[in-house]
Amino acid sequence: MTGSTSAHSPPRRASPRFAAHDRATFDAVLDSCERLAEAHFAPHARRSDIEEPHIVDGCVRLPDAVAPALRAFADSGMAAATEDEALGGMQLPAVVEKAALAYLAAANVATVSYALLAMANARLLLAHGTPAQVEAFARPQLEGRWLGTMCLSETQAGSSLGDITTRAEPDDADAGVPSALGARYRLTGRKMWISGGEHDLAGNIVHLVLAKIPGDDGRLLDGARGVSLFVVPKCLPDADGAPGVRNDIALAGLNHKLGYRGTVNCVLHFGEGAHPVDGRAGAVGWLVGAPGRGLAAMFHMMNEARIGVGLGAVALGYTGYLHALDYARGRTQGRVDGDAATPQVPLVAHADVRRMLLAQKAYVEGGLGLVLYCARLVDEARIASDDAARADTTRLLDLLTPVAKSWPAQWCLAANDLAIQVHGGYGYARDYRVEQLWRDNRLNAIHEGTHGIQAIDLLGRKVAMDDGAAFAAWTARVAQDIAGARTAATGDAAVDTALAAHADALDARLQRLAEVTAALRQAADPRLALANASVYLEAFGHVAVAWIWLQQARVAGATPGDFHDGKRAAARYFFAWELPRIDPQLDLLASLERTPYDMRDGGF
Amino acid sequence: MTGSTSAHSPPRRASPRFAAHDRATFDAVLDSCERLAEAHFAPHARRSDIEEPHIVDGCVRLPDAVAPALRAFADSGMAAATEDEALGGMQLPAVVEKAALAYLAAANVATVSYALLAMANARLLLAHGTPAQVEAFARPQLEGRWLGTMCLSETQAGSSLGDITTRAEPDDADAGVPSALGARYRLTGRKMWISGGEHDLAGNIVHLVLAKIPGDDGRLLDGARGVSLFVVPKCLPDADGAPGVRNDIALAGLNHKLGYRGTVNCVLHFGEGAHPVDGRAGAVGWLVGAPGRGLAAMFHMMNEARIGVGLGAVALGYTGYLHALDYARGRTQGRVDGDAATPQVPLVAHADVRRMLLAQKAYVEGGLGLVLYCARLVDEARIASDDAARADTTRLLDLLTPVAKSWPAQWCLAANDLAIQVHGGYGYARDYRVEQLWRDNRLNAIHEGTHGIQAIDLLGRKVAMDDGAAFAAWTARVAQDIAGARTAATGDAAVDTALAAHADALDARLQRLAEVTAALRQAADPRLALANASVYLEAFGHVAVAWIWLQQARVAGATPGDFHDGKRAAARYFFAWELPRIDPQLDLLASLERTPYDMRDGGF
Repeated sequence: MTGSTSAHSPPRRASPRFAAHDRATFDAVLDSCERLAEAHFAPHARRSDIEEPHIVDGCVRLPDAVAPALRAFADSGMAAATEDEALGGMQLPAVVEKAALAYLAAANVATVSYALLAMANARLLLAHGTPAQVEAFARPQLEGRWLGTMCLSETQAGSSLGDITTRAEPDDADAGVPSALGARYRLTGRKMWISGGEHDLAGNIVHLVLAKIPGDDGRLLDGARGVSLFVVPKCLPDADGAPGVRNDIALAGLNHKLGYRGTVNCVLHFGEGAHPVDGRAGAVGWLVGAPGRGLAAMFHMMNEARIGVGLGAVALGYTGYLHALDYARGRTQGRVDGDAATPQVPLVAHADVRRMLLAQKAYVEGGLGLVLYCARLVDEARIASDDAARADTTRLLDLLTPVAKSWPAQWCLAANDLAIQVHGGYGYARDYRVEQLWRDNRLNAIHEGTHGIQAIDLLGRKVAMDDGAAFAAWTARVAQDIAGARTAATGDAAVDTALAAHADALDARLQRLAEVTAALRQAADPRLALANASVYLEAFGHVAVAWIWLQQARVAGATPGDFHDGKRAAARYFFAWELPRIDPQLDLLASLERTPYDMRDGGF
Repeated sequence: MTGSTSAHSPPRRASPRFAAHDRATFDAVLDSCERLAEAHFAPHARRSDIEEPHIVDGCVRLPDAVAPALRAFADSGMAAATEDEALGGMQLPAVVEKAALAYLAAANVATVSYALLAMANARLLLAHGTPAQVEAFARPQLEGRWLGTMCLSETQAGSSLGDITTRAEPDDADAGVPSALGARYRLTGRKMWISGGEHDLAGNIVHLVLAKIPGDDGRLLDGARGVSLFVVPKCLPDADGAPGVRNDIALAGLNHKLGYRGTVNCVLHFGEGAHPVDGRAGAVGWLVGAPGRGLAAMFHMMNEARIGVGLGAVALGYTGYLHALDYARGRTQGRVDGDAATPQVPLVAHADVRRMLLAQKAYVEGGLGLVLYCARLVDEARIASDDAARADTTRLLDLLTPVAKSWPAQWCLAANDLAIQVHGGYGYARDYRVEQLWRDNRLNAIHEGTHGIQAIDLLGRKVAMDDGAAFAAWTARVAQDIAGARTAATGDAAVDTALAAHADALDARLQRLAEVTAALRQAADPRLALANASVYLEAFGHVAVAWIWLQQARVAGATPGDFHDGKRAAARYFFAWELPRIDPQLDLLASLERTPYDMRDGGF
């Protein structure tokens, strides 16, 4: 989408923050990540799946290739790519960083996840930690020396994080650790689904842990308002900041998953005395931010984490597409004219195979555009000229985040399904890559908030917030692009006509979506209005991705050549085959259809 | 659907063929298969997946529990359940047999597949073999003593079976085997994707093999007209019919699959001298049916095989639904009113979870109805009073078969996906059953003819055959049920209104489907008309399943109670949420949308 001339996106390089960069440095970053992906991540992608993490003598054993890949990643400086130069960063725009990281996720999502988790962890500390906490725990992660996790879920509290029961009690015994790290606590509790929770890939593991501080009566507050955030390292930093005394955190078991197998996933027990500190049980941690604001801090970082999920889904879908395309071009099967005396033709000669490839292309390139658009909003917010502009951009990002998380999770999984189908029986065999990609991608509709959670976030919160300001701002942006496409003068009448038709098709759905949105917000029974939120999320997503395709088609214009032909065809496909899917969905939403809402348990 | 009063379905028990049966014998068969499933098939379902078949000392090693399960199945007499009493059968209606077998597929699809393959093999021999071939090869399978396979695909010939290169040369050396078995050949070639191709679960393995007999010039005929069918046992029958000399068939390797892992899948090399017979290479086989009619014979049996695939897909989807329902009732998470001081509620209390459960219910019960309807047509054809009636019924069955195969493969897989989603993170863990069901079910859109092949079969052949006679006959049946639902008088005005609304909704789509069908058949460019056949298949499928739901809703009528409430709700769900999906599909078909058709390879 270079060359985009949307009036609402001033060139980012005009910002002083990005002044050191130009197209050449962006290309260098992209190329370097592509090489890194090919050299260090792709070669063990299947091995990551087969040689699942397992416990040997109490330690998690991973394939040998994982640690060198993460060292190579650390050496690339990508962990701090978007950070300030003062922190060792490159001040790279997030949109370029995300595009570059996509190569690594495409090559081996399981291995790069260790690094991505550490980056998210460090950013949360940058946003909410004290300078000392940043220095002690974020910097080693930004430098790629340590790794980190997010410890949120417990067995009884997955989507419902307000129900956690991990306790954090004040710990007066300082044990020589600089008090500059803040208020010190002892944590006790059991955490579930901890990706990267235990391994020996790095010098230390920094856990960010949600826990509740008991009141004077010893009881934990109900709900989200009781949840605080703590930084709880596997090894406590010694006087020099190096990993010192082992903290009281025990690996209680591994979860064995459908996919994403290379990313070790653990049950961790905090503070049960397996590794006493100063002679007593309790995992040592320091409060990050204010008490009771743990979920808010965590969700502050959720936008980027969820965009990261969307990016991972896109990367898996894209990889599958490329495999399917390669197979369809190389594999011969059947004939188009039915003449058995002629040689068999490549699969791609069959219209139904081209349909499956076009759908994949439309999903993965559309999803990539949506995710990168959100990354651009991250940049826009960062370089906003004033607080009002920053608030506007952040609100728009807040609105689009559940969509950028969920749409790729749904449709790039569908792309992986089609990639299997293009391969026929071979797609079902583990000798080919596509089945693993499908399994890996299935996680993305679940973690970092399920599809249903995203739907409620979008319809119940984001669309309504500030009296619909974000939704209004977004529809204004889309309307602006619709107007631009309608009046495009590419020099090719057929292309102009197609663009105008796409614009009309999008306009009709955008208006209908706005009507339906208003109706749902005004519904007499808010619970009923929210009951079909998942359908709303899906319809919204198709409108958003149609908008992305409209922009891509406009940029492609009448430029000749295979690449731009492909963009025009994929846009045509999306408008003809995909966007109309939402018409019955919008009708259903408008009708406040109540069958699931009214369903009684006995009827199942 | 007991109590159905459709005018077009006379009670089957009126037929002398089924005279020995009544509701009690049907119930006994169903109960016995349910018990068999629970006792012998379900317990090793996960083990079948984990302890994948592997080769030890040249033999395929399977989990210990597989052989006893198949022996118990043999003892049940189900292998011959629908066959003539003279063959040791029960003359059970296929509709009851399929319903009973669904329990076994639901419990362990991988293990029951060995038996189902043998049954299909035996039936093909019954239809096309000589009495001696039936006695030698079909009877031991119907008695559950031997197992069997279908050897169709080769590496270069999957969907395109006319391109096989396995050769069958006349073999004059009879080696003492009764010539009553027919013309004897020596086969040479390599077969791919052979389910049940090698194991020691039975006394013998009967391979039905497609091969080509060379002409006088030594060359093989191009295309399907050159393909003949042979019966090629692993061990040649001795003078007493017992397994004797080892045939020249070698296990060349196992395919490792995404799912369905317990069904061993092999590469077999025929006639390469690993086990010479009478001192020379060449696998001994006997011609079944006429030369050059091999594909026709194979496809004669394809209807039942494809209905079997649909049934398997339903069984996997149904099992997932039951697991999801159980989980949703037992697992507490979150609240409906948001009051953190109250206990968490069961998942099923959330409307979005009920949506996912209702969708699963609608898919699996709708799919089951469609598959069993097709099984009923098998029965109707069998007991038809004259050839014309038989031809009518068979034509209808031919029409619906690709739909009964593909619709469950697509939507019961979607049900499995939703079952994972209901489980959240636990659904992604291998400790729970649903991820395996999803992997297992993914095969069903591939084997026995891919989704795309079924689509071309439906739109390119079935809909057009006999100048559209089958399509016309089907729409007449549907129209009859629409009329019946419109005039239903259940004694409950609300139910009558709902039924009439369902009928109207179906009627509109049926008419639109008929219009689109006519337009596609008359299209100037038949290749373009066929290009979007997959969409046609999907739209047709939703109409067919809406028809099934209309019948179920009519039978439910106003009968009170949870079971019938559930049926009414699932029907309401299907008409409100599912059927409208096809409106844009039918519009797309009507427009002869040509983006995939026109797409050039370079644009991908």
